[in-house]
Amino acid sequence: MLMLEKFFRPKSVAIIGASKHPNKVGHVILWNFIRGFKGKIYPVNPTHDEVLGLKCYKRVTDIPGHVDLAVIAIPARFVPEALKDCGKKGIKHVIIVSGGFSEIGRTDLEDEVKGVAKKYGIRIIGPNCIGVFDAYSQVDTLFMPRYRLERPRKGGISFISQSGAVGSAILDWAAARGFGFSKFVSYGNACDVDEVDLLNYMEKDRSTRVIGMYIEGTRRGRELYNSLRRITRKKPVIVIKGGKTSAGSKAASSHTGALAGSARVWDAMLKQSGAIIADDIRRMFNYSRLLAEQPLPKGKRVGIITNGGGFGVIASDALESHGLILADLKKETISEIKKHVPEYAVVKNPVDLVGDADAHRYEVALDALLKDENVDIILVLILFQTAGVQSEIIDIIASKSDKKEKPIIAFSAGGDFTSVHMRMLEKVGVPVFDSLEEASDAIEKMYLYSVYVGNAE
Amino acid sequence: MLMLEKFFRPKSVAIIGASKHPNKVGHVILWNFIRGFKGKIYPVNPTHDEVLGLKCYKRVTDIPGHVDLAVIAIPARFVPEALKDCGKKGIKHVIIVSGGFSEIGRTDLEDEVKGVAKKYGIRIIGPNCIGVFDAYSQVDTLFMPRYRLERPRKGGISFISQSGAVGSAILDWAAARGFGFSKFVSYGNACDVDEVDLLNYMEKDRSTRVIGMYIEGTRRGRELYNSLRRITRKKPVIVIKGGKTSAGSKAASSHTGALAGSARVWDAMLKQSGAIIADDIRRMFNYSRLLAEQPLPKGKRVGIITNGGGFGVIASDALESHGLILADLKKETISEIKKHVPEYAVVKNPVDLVGDADAHRYEVALDALLKDENVDIILVLILFQTAGVQSEIIDIIASKSDKKEKPIIAFSAGGDFTSVHMRMLEKVGVPVFDSLEEASDAIEKMYLYSVYVGNAE
Repeated sequence: MLMLEKFFRPKSVAIIGASKHPNKVGHVILWNFIRGFKGKIYPVNPTHDEVLGLKCYKRVTDIPGHVDLAVIAIPARFVPEALKDCGKKGIKHVIIVSGGFSEIGRTDLEDEVKGVAKKYGIRIIGPNCIGVFDAYSQVDTLFMPRYRLERPRKGGISFISQSGAVGSAILDWAAARGFGFSKFVSYGNACDVDEVDLLNYMEKDRSTRVIGMYIEGTRRGRELYNSLRRITRKKPVIVIKGGKTSAGSKAASSHTGALAGSARVWDAMLKQSGAIIADDIRRMFNYSRLLAEQPLPKGKRVGIITNGGGFGVIASDALESHGLILADLKKETISEIKKHVPEYAVVKNPVDLVGDADAHRYEVALDALLKDENVDIILVLILFQTAGVQSEIIDIIASKSDKKEKPIIAFSAGGDFTSVHMRMLEKVGVPVFDSLEEASDAIEKMYLYSVYVGNAE
Repeated sequence: MLMLEKFFRPKSVAIIGASKHPNKVGHVILWNFIRGFKGKIYPVNPTHDEVLGLKCYKRVTDIPGHVDLAVIAIPARFVPEALKDCGKKGIKHVIIVSGGFSEIGRTDLEDEVKGVAKKYGIRIIGPNCIGVFDAYSQVDTLFMPRYRLERPRKGGISFISQSGAVGSAILDWAAARGFGFSKFVSYGNACDVDEVDLLNYMEKDRSTRVIGMYIEGTRRGRELYNSLRRITRKKPVIVIKGGKTSAGSKAASSHTGALAGSARVWDAMLKQSGAIIADDIRRMFNYSRLLAEQPLPKGKRVGIITNGGGFGVIASDALESHGLILADLKKETISEIKKHVPEYAVVKNPVDLVGDADAHRYEVALDALLKDENVDIILVLILFQTAGVQSEIIDIIASKSDKKEKPIIAFSAGGDFTSVHMRMLEKVGVPVFDSLEEASDAIEKMYLYSVYVGNAE
């Protein structure tokens, strides 16, 4: 059993503050668990006998069975007492979502919580956080309404966020785009479990293929560096550092009270540690999606397939700007593709299948580029505005991508019809971009990571 | 009457190649006109007596009334003859969407077209293009199915594209996001009307507030420079240059046959001309939206309002990275806001209205920042994941933005619930970003343009 495992895969959970009132945090959290969690659920609230069809207990000590995890969602002043009950009950893992501690100057209350935790050997995530979401176990303490905050599908990205707002917006944003997650943790005031602990957990977690972090500051710089240095050799870690400018650093100190530290020191530390630095949340996900769902490339030679010449030009520019190379297609590749496409198609790299291309032409070109040893990475541009491209193209690209022979990355841009197809592709594990600059940036990072772990030169 | 005006605001139009068959280009175009165009529409096709409920003419010369504009959508080999008919009928403006000319080596056929045009004094857009879309007059020759290619609302952006695929994807993409357009032109082989003519037209066009261009090459570098130099003083022109790297340049020569020219020469030319260079299509629209719909700022001091501290930090970093300054709020501003928000709100810059903020808090903060002379630009971050932010916030921000006192730019990030609100904001003319890096980049460009035209220091 991994340390912290019970935060993510408990067999039984107590919701302290479970409520009948739909606008209460404890109601939303209970509802989340009922909806997806397969283990035992114990609502705890002294004023209810029953909540959402479940028997409700006055205190956790009244619960008959063993409890792996407690979630506390009650006003701050009642938290130490509830935590003591958890200790008496033998609960070793507690998520405190309640705010009202050190972040508003009540360090006394937070110290009391720490004292209780220490006495009973309890590990705590929080307080003042939105807690944990696990796409596999459906542990879900996110107390924002589901109609406002969508939950993502299962996948390989885990995201650790110091900021609850950043975390929840991102999760929602990523879910709507079809990105797959393993775990999400917002750790708030980090009175116990912090970014280093969580990072070390994600290192061992099998369903986590890529780790993303939003971090404003740390109390354990040396340990953070050591963990990153070790973990990045096994799994990519992508970090957004909040407070890297003087303006941002000032804002961070008002926000989490974090000493954001010198931008230069952070930058040097992160680079030396092998972490991938992202300037922006979208870029973090761009890198994560590629690294989580595609095989690492053996080199930096890209083959482009397109049904619009102009986008082939823009892609070529963007790739070269990011230090990548347009692959020199083999003669066999060109003659093979030419056999199956009309004469007016331009079979070079980019392979321009032209405006009336159908899924079959894409299949021929994909197969040829997968076979060509001069091609390390395939970038497929698909414009859905023309009538020739039918939905079956999703299946074709997915089936090639599933073989994991070479990274396949897709690009498309358009309105609702296009978006539906982009989401379909994303759902079957093919990363799709609507910006060729961003696609090229992400391919560059994937290539550099491949070099870092000795998979490419 | 402006030159080229009849391409965009004809009183009557003939569709040569109008067809009963839904998958034919001439059918889609006729249908587009019937759907939105208010002038007279004459289908022309020797094999039909009637199409889509309209009387169909065998040749344009059979049409009883005057015709301002003809659209030709028939196989290339029949085009010269049809064009001669247009000449005889006195039609002076013709859009040829048909392909099969110089782009596949048939320069002979294109020369024939040019000869006829010269003889009769006809101006031509095309051939091998998707032609014109005008959001006001509903001239619409885009022959992609409407379910695949959405049309944008009316607005101030006009876009000139050398590539049809780039143009159509972009229009579709922009439409779905609620961006407002004036005109769109894909000019294809440019056998007559080219990018310089179109640029000069947009200069005079009243509903065009900002001009965007996608260009791979030009035959009139000097004139292009002169036009840009003159026009950028009056209206921002944002240019994406395709083929700016050696890989892109090679791809461009296969695509439009354009001599993409030296990247350095283009870069220098564009910079000297006062054009705003965009690396990416999305960035082009980012710049366009701000410049088309918001007043120019008097300086570079930004006030931030947020309901999530972490995003305040990221925004501060992003703004400073782009050379902007966090405004030093006046004491009166701070005390005014403090009167109306709870104690735990952090009233500095960023103004953090915290997680339970409602629309009223936003209104108070917006009013105070609009009044504060130390603030030139307002960046409003709204996270819709929390239950406090109701839809009325759209009205509040829109009503402040409508006064056009200072540029107001919004940021949000999330899933479907958020997206609906982002589109609403965009529809009422408030640019919304889902990336703070991109928002800051666009604000920087807006500020630099304001300096360029002498509106800011």
